[in-house]
Amino acid sequence: MMNTPKKMQFNLKLTVLWLLCCGVHLAMAQPPRGPLVISPQVHADKTVTFRYLAPRAALVKLSGQFLKAPVEMAKDSIGIWSITVGPVNPDIYPYSFNVDGVTVMDPANVAFFPNERFKASLVDVPGDTPLIHALQDVPHGTITYEYYPSLEESTGSVVVYTPPGYDKNSSTRYPVFYLISGTTDTEETFFKVGKVNFILDNLIAQGKAKPMIVVMPYGNPMARIAEQNLEPKPADLISREGDDAIRRAKLFENDLINQVIPYIEKNYRTISDRNSRAIGGFSRGGGQTLRAGFGNLNTFAWICSYSAGLSPAEMESNYKHIGGDSKKTNDQLKLLWVSVGTEDFLYKGNIEFMDYLKSKNVNYKSLITGGGHTWMNVKTYVAETVQLLFK
Amino acid sequence: MMNTPKKMQFNLKLTVLWLLCCGVHLAMAQPPRGPLVISPQVHADKTVTFRYLAPRAALVKLSGQFLKAPVEMAKDSIGIWSITVGPVNPDIYPYSFNVDGVTVMDPANVAFFPNERFKASLVDVPGDTPLIHALQDVPHGTITYEYYPSLEESTGSVVVYTPPGYDKNSSTRYPVFYLISGTTDTEETFFKVGKVNFILDNLIAQGKAKPMIVVMPYGNPMARIAEQNLEPKPADLISREGDDAIRRAKLFENDLINQVIPYIEKNYRTISDRNSRAIGGFSRGGGQTLRAGFGNLNTFAWICSYSAGLSPAEMESNYKHIGGDSKKTNDQLKLLWVSVGTEDFLYKGNIEFMDYLKSKNVNYKSLITGGGHTWMNVKTYVAETVQLLFK
Repeated sequence: MMNTPKKMQFNLKLTVLWLLCCGVHLAMAQPPRGPLVISPQVHADKTVTFRYLAPRAALVKLSGQFLKAPVEMAKDSIGIWSITVGPVNPDIYPYSFNVDGVTVMDPANVAFFPNERFKASLVDVPGDTPLIHALQDVPHGTITYEYYPSLEESTGSVVVYTPPGYDKNSSTRYPVFYLISGTTDTEETFFKVGKVNFILDNLIAQGKAKPMIVVMPYGNPMARIAEQNLEPKPADLISREGDDAIRRAKLFENDLINQVIPYIEKNYRTISDRNSRAIGGFSRGGGQTLRAGFGNLNTFAWICSYSAGLSPAEMESNYKHIGGDSKKTNDQLKLLWVSVGTEDFLYKGNIEFMDYLKSKNVNYKSLITGGGHTWMNVKTYVAETVQLLFK
Repeated sequence: MMNTPKKMQFNLKLTVLWLLCCGVHLAMAQPPRGPLVISPQVHADKTVTFRYLAPRAALVKLSGQFLKAPVEMAKDSIGIWSITVGPVNPDIYPYSFNVDGVTVMDPANVAFFPNERFKASLVDVPGDTPLIHALQDVPHGTITYEYYPSLEESTGSVVVYTPPGYDKNSSTRYPVFYLISGTTDTEETFFKVGKVNFILDNLIAQGKAKPMIVVMPYGNPMARIAEQNLEPKPADLISREGDDAIRRAKLFENDLINQVIPYIEKNYRTISDRNSRAIGGFSRGGGQTLRAGFGNLNTFAWICSYSAGLSPAEMESNYKHIGGDSKKTNDQLKLLWVSVGTEDFLYKGNIEFMDYLKSKNVNYKSLITGGGHTWMNVKTYVAETVQLLFK
């Protein structure tokens, strides 16, 4: 996998840069930072070189969702560990280094995965023709971080995409897609990892998606409320997952329906009827999507589940009306979408969920892909579904 | 520094959470992630507990800008390393862990320092009364990520603060403060670390700052242009600092004056005259501020240098008009602000810069603080200067 001649040539350049760099630092009386490491470096043949400076480390490995298993890197005379892998199938992948057993982000890479439990960097391997999530030369929408009054006197943060042509002085109004990240993700993850803004910019430019607003709330308002309102913070309240999934899901639904949506509809030029509101989400956010969607059919007419699914038992006990009056459900729901990858740990659960829907004659569309519980798959699902929404 | 009884009690809670957490994961057929680590945990007495899970590590240290030197942490029976430090003077500080010689962010903390060369987390120690950068119960502005046409057919990213009351359908227009981060920072750093949005929300609510738009460009468009336009990327073009500081500064100035400002003035309700444009920046961004400001007095009437400064030699060779006709300079400049900390490695250079200004009878205001080349100081300087701008 190593491309030795290129690497040697490159390290020469790095050494020169190091000298130049230190020289300038000396002139500025600034402490030198060591050699300038370029990582990741995506080559024209779609191989990728990763580098990590660790002169004293005994073993450095690369982990990435483009690899079946971690691979060992090799150290040069400066102490830069490197490896060239691939060619890699074009996509955006999370990766990290394992340095003597310690997992670290790539310090030379500014692209990161916003998450509350792990830290990963992102590598973008472009396609020969631009992928649907790539920054292209088309009109761009914007991403806005809004602060809204949330439950229990806390202040929530929500990320909002407005489409190109969302002219601030125009009277055009837009439908809204509420889009929820997974467990331990944040309100930034669909922007930074999911690239929902570029996906929509591109599909809108191609005439394949309707211009829409996308609203990305934070999936765990209970943690935020505890953080803002308690001092000191009891550990059992600031834990961010797992200890009471249903209670958390209800709190999220309450925040979404009663705080987020009214705030958005007051501050953005939305079309405020159920036919112009969609909800979608990944993983825990997919579960929240199905629960908030099935529980509020007067609010949402479009429901998109990405790598989620509810058990037949939960459907029977909490959402019996969905299958109980399938004609009404089918009349109300303009889209019920179910996506999962064949290698996803929730694949079997999704099959059971779809079998339940079938047995009750509830209409749905599905896209089963290869791959697992990944953001590579999420981007595919988003790009497919936004072409169906609000049509 | 260790608070042993509290720590033991806390680890009991963590163990319980771990069990609960795994239980839920098993029910969802999701792989367990290990114990839930809470870090950082700020206590009411302003001590702070940091935790890091590393059962196999031999030595874990905490580094932080609230510490004089790194401190060793202690491992418990689960493998969670922890330490309680302080009381810590209220502020927001960068910190990281050093795990057997490897520097890592805090995986349990979502607050991070956007940077191209290092990865650090952020801990926020609140004041007894809210600090000027704290999220408070006041009207909030928004932060928007814009994509604009930059030089050489590249697409630039710029972060924009609009004040509360920036009603999208109103006809009110606002002055603009262009604010530039330091070397290896990104266009996100003044938002994520500098908290410029909350500082302005609070000062506007108190009637101490005029409502203004703040525009935060990326300081190194040369790197971005190379990234977008070259395949494969030559290492000497994608290096991000040092090898040609002046050439980079000119390119930045060109991008700011000819691309960023026209884009902002087209898309936002700005007051588009020199008296309503300010420029400010930290470190490299402070140097860019002085160069772009002195070089474009027809564009900017307000100039704020935070921990930067130009040498008398550069002033004499490139900006001789500033001291050469000090009456004209003083008439044109509504504010020339110079701030630095006494422990900053650029302190001496700033004194020389101010001595030069004095010797030429160029008016300026200065604030010399304690402390070094830190974002704690930058927040103070921003909070002081925005109270002076556009008045």
